Amino acid sequence: MNYFSSHFKLGILGGGQLGKMLLYETRKFDIHTKVLEASEDAPCKIACNEFVLGNLMDFDAVYDFGKQVDVLTIEIENVNLDALEKLEEEGVKVYPPTKALRIIQNKATQKLFYVDKGIPTADFSRFAYASEIEDAVENEALDFPFVWKAAQFGYDGQGVKIVRTFDDLKELPPGECITEKMIPFKNELAVIVVRNPSGQVVTYPVVEMEFHPEANQVEYVICPARIDENVAEKAQEIALNVSREIGHIGILAVEMFQTQDDKILVNEVAPRPHNSGHYSIEASYTNQFEQHIRAILDLPLGRTDSKVAGIMVNLVGAEGHTGDVVYENIREIMAMEGVTPHVYGKKQTRPFRKMGHVTIVNEDINEARRIAQRVKETIHVVSQ
Amino acid sequence: MNYFSSHFKLGILGGGQLGKMLLYETRKFDIHTKVLEASEDAPCKIACNEFVLGNLMDFDAVYDFGKQVDVLTIEIENVNLDALEKLEEEGVKVYPPTKALRIIQNKATQKLFYVDKGIPTADFSRFAYASEIEDAVENEALDFPFVWKAAQFGYDGQGVKIVRTFDDLKELPPGECITEKMIPFKNELAVIVVRNPSGQVVTYPVVEMEFHPEANQVEYVICPARIDENVAEKAQEIALNVSREIGHIGILAVEMFQTQDDKILVNEVAPRPHNSGHYSIEASYTNQFEQHIRAILDLPLGRTDSKVAGIMVNLVGAEGHTGDVVYENIREIMAMEGVTPHVYGKKQTRPFRKMGHVTIVNEDINEARRIAQRVKETIHVVSQ
Repeated sequence: MNYFSSHFKLGILGGGQLGKMLLYETRKFDIHTKVLEASEDAPCKIACNEFVLGNLMDFDAVYDFGKQVDVLTIEIENVNLDALEKLEEEGVKVYPPTKALRIIQNKATQKLFYVDKGIPTADFSRFAYASEIEDAVENEALDFPFVWKAAQFGYDGQGVKIVRTFDDLKELPPGECITEKMIPFKNELAVIVVRNPSGQVVTYPVVEMEFHPEANQVEYVICPARIDENVAEKAQEIALNVSREIGHIGILAVEMFQTQDDKILVNEVAPRPHNSGHYSIEASYTNQFEQHIRAILDLPLGRTDSKVAGIMVNLVGAEGHTGDVVYENIREIMAMEGVTPHVYGKKQTRPFRKMGHVTIVNEDINEARRIAQRVKETIHVVSQ
Repeated sequence: MNYFSSHFKLGILGGGQLGKMLLYETRKFDIHTKVLEASEDAPCKIACNEFVLGNLMDFDAVYDFGKQVDVLTIEIENVNLDALEKLEEEGVKVYPPTKALRIIQNKATQKLFYVDKGIPTADFSRFAYASEIEDAVENEALDFPFVWKAAQFGYDGQGVKIVRTFDDLKELPPGECITEKMIPFKNELAVIVVRNPSGQVVTYPVVEMEFHPEANQVEYVICPARIDENVAEKAQEIALNVSREIGHIGILAVEMFQTQDDKILVNEVAPRPHNSGHYSIEASYTNQFEQHIRAILDLPLGRTDSKVAGIMVNLVGAEGHTGDVVYENIREIMAMEGVTPHVYGKKQTRPFRKMGHVTIVNEDINEARRIAQRVKETIHVVSQ
């Protein structure tokens, strides 16, 4: 298929910020793009050739949209899988494949899959309703504290909670969920694996994530991770194993824990460009968005190593601020060495809402880390 | 002024490929953009917030457009300067300033300016009509061969010609022009200078340009230039001097000759992102498009040095091919190390038409140069 022709159409399910960054990269190759998205004022609208309004969970909306494109990809996992399956049967190239999405979309299914395939992961229990958790605790089948995760539709720090008391239990949404043992980890790590339909597979360097203690959101993503070479190798091997078993096409971001005794446990995966890969826009030879496009179009994959060290800082809404957003001191951080802000353009801020990210690149990772700290302390996402 | 607000509007005169690449960078800062352009199917259309159809040389079109924005910039020099002047008087921030554009827009004026300011440049003569050139040659005021340049509207290798015979003279367009002594140069060099309204000034490293012998178009731009340190310093000094005298805001690309005896002569300048800076997208800490945005919004300027060596190869239409474009062997070049194609999306190719560019980045400039050569020999821009 000639992707560099006006007859070819790439469809993207979801029109959010990830989709927008993906769309910029399609311009390098002049690919005709079409987006399906439920929100009229989605970020993608400015960057795609065609925009279709529709519900991503609706069979007909997804199926009808898919029939109009040659290759179909996603920027969010919550899409109608039955429609994708039918499209695949009818010859549309769906990347990642529906089979991979079925494993990933539901976190309980995802965890069972790891157990089934012998992939190391934290111990967990599945509950059809959150109300069953209380029984489990009372029957001593489960001990406080533990991590609760919604089986579906988790997003932006939502859908994950540390539960310490019966009171915490009362705040949980009612639906299907899992609980996980809390892992007293040394580091949270991630590896991006990329695969194209021809079978070429590449991995990005291991990155290290520092989390905000309360919001359960990543504060810093650091590439390369400051860990021992043999731990990094183990993390890459396990990520490749997950990738092989899931059989994804495109990007797969594999999040992992490095335990106190240097074991690697898979936490969860995302089958699309991911927050843990944003540093790649400035630091890598091939950024994750260009790489995803290369993969799903079955083009040769690009170099995954870095030109320089990269650190990403998430820009989230400050506590106590809700309303029209102001990026306080953004000029000050832009005066710092190797700093590029990415403002997503959401008009309203609220506590911990993901409003953008900032990348810091430097030849010296320790210098990058010092600048990242100053960025974090200087910029504030507040309301007017 | 708060640029990161929905009330702020950035206007761009011209909707071509340079404008499109500039627009991608505005997304990092979520800046509201508005483009004025004469062609309904301009590349910019997919990347701006608002698109206005209009002639850039028409006073009313430019003036009316300018009244609706806060900061006005250009992606092409051929715009109505009287309208810009009036807009400036009425408080619109026009960057580059009209005064700078008046010097640059007409090549005869530009050359006279260099002479006036003591900036070294090749000897030249100005002619109100090309027909006057023949008289000059016959009166021995001018010798073959020489370089002919149209005073205005040169573009893409058009508007420049080497004249060797009376026959060559017959093919020249009739209008105002200059003739220049041919400089037997060692190298063609360029330096990008960037200035913001607060007075911060930075320069990019000196790049080296290799030209196609016939088409008078750049084939390779190599950063850093493989020249002596003291020649590079001299080129940077002269570029800074040109920048200071012209008083531009934003990017100024200064093209120069390095003569056989290592003198530097200024060839010409462009007051906007420029082909000689495309390598910066992949190689520099801050690419030229982001830098231009930073400058015209009076934000702090970013680092101008490179993460790795970068070489740009222009993709131009092959001789003997006119019609629907095909990028022959584009997969093959994408399989080479550190290679990123930028396809501009023009549907029709013709000999020497600029259809895109390819960047090659590598830690080792000699390896980058070898790969660039292979890229050049492998990809062919042909018709179907």
